[in-house]
Amino acid sequence: MAVTGLEDIVAGQTSVSTIDGKRGVLTYRGISIHEMADNSSFEETVFLLWYGFLPHAKELDTFKEAIGRETLLDPKVAAWLKALPADANPMSLLRTGVSLLGLADPDEGCSVTAEPWKDGFRYMGQLTPGAPGYGRDHPSARKAIRLLGRMTALVPAIQRVMKGQAFVEPARGKSIAFNFLRCLTGQDPDAANEAIFDKCLILHADHEFNASTFTARVAASTLSDLHSAVVSAIGALKGPLHGGANTEVMHMLLEVGSPDKATAWVKDALEKKKKIMGFGHRMYKTEDPRATHLRRMSESLCAKVGKPEWYEMSRLIEEAMWELKAIKPNVDFYSASTYYCMGIDPEMFTPIFALSRLSGWTAHVLEQQANNRLIRPVGDYVGPQEAHWTPMESR
Amino acid sequence: MAVTGLEDIVAGQTSVSTIDGKRGVLTYRGISIHEMADNSSFEETVFLLWYGFLPHAKELDTFKEAIGRETLLDPKVAAWLKALPADANPMSLLRTGVSLLGLADPDEGCSVTAEPWKDGFRYMGQLTPGAPGYGRDHPSARKAIRLLGRMTALVPAIQRVMKGQAFVEPARGKSIAFNFLRCLTGQDPDAANEAIFDKCLILHADHEFNASTFTARVAASTLSDLHSAVVSAIGALKGPLHGGANTEVMHMLLEVGSPDKATAWVKDALEKKKKIMGFGHRMYKTEDPRATHLRRMSESLCAKVGKPEWYEMSRLIEEAMWELKAIKPNVDFYSASTYYCMGIDPEMFTPIFALSRLSGWTAHVLEQQANNRLIRPVGDYVGPQEAHWTPMESR
Repeated sequence: MAVTGLEDIVAGQTSVSTIDGKRGVLTYRGISIHEMADNSSFEETVFLLWYGFLPHAKELDTFKEAIGRETLLDPKVAAWLKALPADANPMSLLRTGVSLLGLADPDEGCSVTAEPWKDGFRYMGQLTPGAPGYGRDHPSARKAIRLLGRMTALVPAIQRVMKGQAFVEPARGKSIAFNFLRCLTGQDPDAANEAIFDKCLILHADHEFNASTFTARVAASTLSDLHSAVVSAIGALKGPLHGGANTEVMHMLLEVGSPDKATAWVKDALEKKKKIMGFGHRMYKTEDPRATHLRRMSESLCAKVGKPEWYEMSRLIEEAMWELKAIKPNVDFYSASTYYCMGIDPEMFTPIFALSRLSGWTAHVLEQQANNRLIRPVGDYVGPQEAHWTPMESR
Repeated sequence: MAVTGLEDIVAGQTSVSTIDGKRGVLTYRGISIHEMADNSSFEETVFLLWYGFLPHAKELDTFKEAIGRETLLDPKVAAWLKALPADANPMSLLRTGVSLLGLADPDEGCSVTAEPWKDGFRYMGQLTPGAPGYGRDHPSARKAIRLLGRMTALVPAIQRVMKGQAFVEPARGKSIAFNFLRCLTGQDPDAANEAIFDKCLILHADHEFNASTFTARVAASTLSDLHSAVVSAIGALKGPLHGGANTEVMHMLLEVGSPDKATAWVKDALEKKKKIMGFGHRMYKTEDPRATHLRRMSESLCAKVGKPEWYEMSRLIEEAMWELKAIKPNVDFYSASTYYCMGIDPEMFTPIFALSRLSGWTAHVLEQQANNRLIRPVGDYVGPQEAHWTPMESR
């Protein structure tokens, strides 16, 4: 049996993140996600992923301001979005929305090799006016900042297109987590919800060469532009074997309905050879470290909002899956009940994943472009040999 | 030095096409592209790539009719397209256009695993009403037919958006090559131009695990939908190391200006370490077999339209590149002068490549979905080890 799916095949070098699947460790630039989730913010995490170091106070402020200036959807893009069909798949709407943002980006026409790339990459951290290299950044780095800002408003706008609601403008000087929840619900979130959502964004930010990130790197390796690479990644994330899984986990929980039915439901589903979403991960032999955090968040949040059944149901499904299949939950499993208890529609779970993972996708695109080689594997040909074209009458 | 760019790494099995780089052979389902280019039509080529065999007369007719029924852009999609900015990059417009088509596709909501896939794949060839399995096809197969039909009108519509011209409707009962040229120029092509363009479509149809096709396969391997996979592929094709090269070849020819300047221009460009587009290919040790056909087509067409200088210039650049760098032209090099002498704008060369390669992308997506495994390689981590989050004041 040939190796399939490039399992365990090294596709390139990276210093953005790494996974130790035996020990259940995920690090961003060498820092454990446990430390990041407990101490950092999503903005600081993005800074780390893009520039490779933790910022000083002034750098982080400048960075947040730079993102904050880019959160407004311009009226033309907003008008395009409002014309899209309300009954479409939210990930297809997001894919289209980011493609539209690409058309409107001021650096759209820039070649990714037009400016001193390696210097540009190094200087991306120099966001402080007057610092050496300030302004000597790269079009892809500028695009990444713009896109992160706009995604904060675009992802909630997708939901509002689907519900036929007016768009809500982000507030100045607030976090991505705050503004996302504000634009989604139309109400400013309290500090607790902002903090939980911020932690979710940190935990989903990057995961080495996952399928969507790898898609983005392959597209970027042709020296295509950052928006094209991100649009490609969104297309990959949509699939139920990847980001689409968290929405499907919630659909499963809703189908189960209550904790007393959970164990029997799992047994029945396994007997019927149904795929149970949110379990197992090719990279981890032990627990997915992101699931550890999300389980805790799900437990406290479900209790806080008076809906402990969603956590209990999840826990019972986890136990049954461990007992019957010896498989552990992955990142998608407890994020479902967490988002649901924050009042977020299941259809938005995968677009939220995209908002967070955008940070990793763009970090990998910048890394790929900084030291590019076209990613072009070969196929193992198993088709007919030496066939010939024959005239119609002799077929 | 680690292997980069997955060079020579097998990423999966395929029976769609294969390349023998030492002998300079490319086959579609085992049939040499020379036989296909000399005898077949683009529609027959697509049938072969998708279903794996050459059709009987009735099957081919049914197939052509099925595509022909799908060439009209629906008014909603046409209205969306007309709202897009005329000064945008044509590949970004195409990426957005196909994403829009995905939103409007009647099978948009279908899971790719919802129907009997392997049977569906086998029965895709049964297009004749009454034949066993007729109608038992797969949503992805239906989408592929619709998308191929609509791309025939969409690619010319992109040019018409950019020129502020009204869209032209395809004619019923005509070939994809005919209708593409009709919708692009507003005039029905003569038989000779239709035949040349048809041959160009055949030659660009598939090329094993090239970067855009591989992007499509990675996206499809998450069980995402066909439109997402194609949108991803368009993003990859846009890059100048891939499809974007044919447009850049024409820009180079226009810059050179006349045959007497060609040799000196190449020498000067090489001295200045400029990248000369349209030469070399990772997969071929000898001549790219597609270049052989395109060189001949360029020669006869440039002569026929009274512009032999574009062929002569190309030939002299080829000779200089062989003498100075020992590199041979690839598929992009002679397609530039060929399309240009057909009166096609250089900006449309890469979208035309997409129209042709759509057949290969979709064949590979269908093949990937028929026997899927998530494509998820690993990264070679070269970043910091055991770093820690530190409080702001101690950084």
